[in-house]
Amino acid sequence: MKKMNKKLNAAIIVIGNEILSGRTQDVNVLNISNWLNDLGVNLQEVRIIPDVEIKIIKTVNEIRKKFKYVFTTGGIGPTHDDITSKSISKAFKVKYCYHPKAYEILENYYEKGKFNTGRKKMAKTPEKASLIYNPSSAAPGFFIKNVYCLPGVPSILKSMLGGLSNQIVGGSKILTKTLSLRTVESEISTPLEKIQKKYKKLEIGSYPFFQQGKIGVSLVMRSKKIKLIKKCTTDIINLVKKKNIKIIQKSK
Amino acid sequence: MKKMNKKLNAAIIVIGNEILSGRTQDVNVLNISNWLNDLGVNLQEVRIIPDVEIKIIKTVNEIRKKFKYVFTTGGIGPTHDDITSKSISKAFKVKYCYHPKAYEILENYYEKGKFNTGRKKMAKTPEKASLIYNPSSAAPGFFIKNVYCLPGVPSILKSMLGGLSNQIVGGSKILTKTLSLRTVESEISTPLEKIQKKYKKLEIGSYPFFQQGKIGVSLVMRSKKIKLIKKCTTDIINLVKKKNIKIIQKSK
Repeated sequence: MKKMNKKLNAAIIVIGNEILSGRTQDVNVLNISNWLNDLGVNLQEVRIIPDVEIKIIKTVNEIRKKFKYVFTTGGIGPTHDDITSKSISKAFKVKYCYHPKAYEILENYYEKGKFNTGRKKMAKTPEKASLIYNPSSAAPGFFIKNVYCLPGVPSILKSMLGGLSNQIVGGSKILTKTLSLRTVESEISTPLEKIQKKYKKLEIGSYPFFQQGKIGVSLVMRSKKIKLIKKCTTDIINLVKKKNIKIIQKSK
Repeated sequence: MKKMNKKLNAAIIVIGNEILSGRTQDVNVLNISNWLNDLGVNLQEVRIIPDVEIKIIKTVNEIRKKFKYVFTTGGIGPTHDDITSKSISKAFKVKYCYHPKAYEILENYYEKGKFNTGRKKMAKTPEKASLIYNPSSAAPGFFIKNVYCLPGVPSILKSMLGGLSNQIVGGSKILTKTLSLRTVESEISTPLEKIQKKYKKLEIGSYPFFQQGKIGVSLVMRSKKIKLIKKCTTDIINLVKKKNIKIIQKSK
């Protein structure tokens, strides 16, 4: 069981020419990541790849061996550039065929005579995949082994995550605390490194920001242990007091 | 020379726990991608990885062999979590040391006595790297062979791209045209697939959208050849006329 806990990690494969071409700003990574934080699962890698079958197959087969959970976004719609389901079938060397339940859902959803070829395509999955239900627009996602395939449209994807939560065996929630300071990174980098070295099971990130013409630094602590976050916060507060640095904000 | 033209591709490695943790929305991929479009370079893959040395080394060494240009974002600041320069040095098996010109720039930038350890760190690069000048905040990026290292702060990164353009040997600009239609994807998927099959050197992407409570589909054509875009536009307009679908907008 201990070994399993170590492996509470995940990766996302964003499948979409529109992200690579700069047409569309991806927001799914952020949404999935925050959902995973609450489930206690650590997102450790993201790959953004084009709608190219061989690229999808290779990436999925490489990534699914390395991570406990793999999420794909995009490419499960009705058009010619939606090739995720077919490619995942090939990656797993299983048939790409109608999923009886998905077919039923979509047949009921569309008016009689309107369940055309494009719509029928959305009922196809790798053989014996399980469905991920879609409360927004009927067409389901699916999962096969540890690979969970979600759509690219952010609002639809988000609406599907709730129902997916019970499929994910997670861990303790990942906790964060942020201290925003009126300083620059290079003023605090040396003592901050000492503090980081003291806490092995807590991660401190340092992020400069510009706000209303003023600069500052946000220090973000991340850990599963609230005790560590409290101790580290005290250390940082002592440091900034000594340096006469103003704390602008404390937040989660 | 023909062979070189084929290889006008690029990849981005986003180095940053803050993106993976869901704290920060990446926007650098979109900005770099649009800049590359104008230079005629195709962005073909993105990897988002944590601030972990071994992961950076492995990813850089894998990716730099596969793509003509590799851009990294993040991790070149003064704090303990900024380990990109050191890791890239290890990837290339060269010394990690002060860059004389970077040292000079930063020494001049800071007031006397204020050029502390953290700030000096920003003058370190892989040995013999070339600098990428920073018109916003002095601390330069650098490149070594085909790997270009940029900061994570979007406004600073953007300000550095202009000066970098003359280092990139590009090709013809990648042109796009978008037709936004009042329809759903599954109404047009079959005839659209036929049109895509007709044009091998043009890529049609189909993207559903929701706007002010109404749904629609944007068809995005991408090609280096304006002639193909014009021909394909005519084919799509004929298709939508036949289906009585309204064109909401035509744009680049």
